[in-house]
Amino acid sequence: MTVKQLSLPELVEACGQLGVANVGLWREPVQAYGLEATAKLVRDAGLTVTTLCRGGFLTAVDPAERAGALDDNRRAVDEAAALGTDTLVLVSGGLPAGSKDLHGARERIADALAVLGPYAEDHGVKLAIEPLHPMFASDRCVVSTLAQALDLAERFPARQVGVTVDTYHIWWDDNAPAQIARAGAGGRIHTFQLADWITPLPEGVLNGRGQIGDGSIDMREWKGYVEAAGYTGAIEVELFNDRLWARDGRELLAETAARFVEHAG
Amino acid sequence: MTVKQLSLPELVEACGQLGVANVGLWREPVQAYGLEATAKLVRDAGLTVTTLCRGGFLTAVDPAERAGALDDNRRAVDEAAALGTDTLVLVSGGLPAGSKDLHGARERIADALAVLGPYAEDHGVKLAIEPLHPMFASDRCVVSTLAQALDLAERFPARQVGVTVDTYHIWWDDNAPAQIARAGAGGRIHTFQLADWITPLPEGVLNGRGQIGDGSIDMREWKGYVEAAGYTGAIEVELFNDRLWARDGRELLAETAARFVEHAG
Repeated sequence: MTVKQLSLPELVEACGQLGVANVGLWREPVQAYGLEATAKLVRDAGLTVTTLCRGGFLTAVDPAERAGALDDNRRAVDEAAALGTDTLVLVSGGLPAGSKDLHGARERIADALAVLGPYAEDHGVKLAIEPLHPMFASDRCVVSTLAQALDLAERFPARQVGVTVDTYHIWWDDNAPAQIARAGAGGRIHTFQLADWITPLPEGVLNGRGQIGDGSIDMREWKGYVEAAGYTGAIEVELFNDRLWARDGRELLAETAARFVEHAG
Repeated sequence: MTVKQLSLPELVEACGQLGVANVGLWREPVQAYGLEATAKLVRDAGLTVTTLCRGGFLTAVDPAERAGALDDNRRAVDEAAALGTDTLVLVSGGLPAGSKDLHGARERIADALAVLGPYAEDHGVKLAIEPLHPMFASDRCVVSTLAQALDLAERFPARQVGVTVDTYHIWWDDNAPAQIARAGAGGRIHTFQLADWITPLPEGVLNGRGQIGDGSIDMREWKGYVEAAGYTGAIEVELFNDRLWARDGRELLAETAARFVEHAG
């Protein structure tokens, strides 16, 4: 999504030219290009798919909506397995329309994980609950902190459910470093993502993630926390930003790779 | 500020017509109307000033900036005392330009409180640290949770430094109810403010506070937490919202009073 202006073949080609060997993918462009075609494309290029984003949206009350969400998440697990990644990132969902019950919404996520965790394990896929910044609590994700994500994940085996550590969402939280240690001790850091915090936030706040190095977050500090917690997996850079998307995709990918070396290498 | 489209005399008159006996004021309109004139205006109308907003912005590194901020906060204490309120709300300040050091910024706030706390006490004023929503952590307030605010406040006597509990900033935090209990046990809930959480957030996110009842927050639940913690003071409604400010101020004040009764009465 960092370079969503590139088609999947363009992305794969650009990764090859830059020596980028790992890529995180989102479901929508994969579905548009075709699942099997994408799997072949990345496999032929020797690229490893680090994670698939995203499953989730598990907070509905309506039974038909809940059943639909579970079906969609099973499909997401299938897609992850077909792409050869072992990690599906979950954005848990916000409050149903008119609801003020955060606790109830979080419990419905747990109910869904009890169904989806074993399904994912059977397909060789781990679920990675992503706490989103509290500014998304009502409309996108009622899981706002690593502590909340771990409270949910720890009800299940680590091989089924862990967490996504994303600097953008947790950088303000002085409790987050201790929670990263807790996650690492339990083998539950299933992926680690970087984006920087910049202001002013745009309307709707979704597409304001900053290029690493442009904002308030010390990337090397957070990389140190996950490494100290035993994480040895890939590090993803995930930028949602209308200004970055308006630029040339290859140039942006090259800049991002260079920023990664400068700020988190 | 909820009805900043009203002049201070209009506000005082409208409060009288609605039977509103308490009002929180902001420094800018008070200074524009004149401190002594404002004090006389509210006194003659029999209105009680609940709090003065706001002091703070105590995170600068530059010595001249720090000295200037301390001077400004002493003036804010003086203004609060002149208006007859015992509570000055503090918005602590964000990261200095280019800084990524949240911890250091929080420590500089503590350094400033060590100077301002005794000054405020000498003038019969309590300082109320307001944790702001984490979406303001970089540019407005590095104190993002009640726990952080209390970690700061508890270094000083409760008669000098406590906290502001504002539903808008803390509603997402499952740790906040326990922190309200902690604050109440220490006599540190210095004011309690209501606003609702609505989306989409506007660009810059500052002026997106929702009318109570319009959003995701159960006002009565949070009122219950502060009352269970022993709080018996005034409850303020503080809305920053361009759409509300574009409306007739008297009508908005009447609506707000009605919403208060409906959702928090």
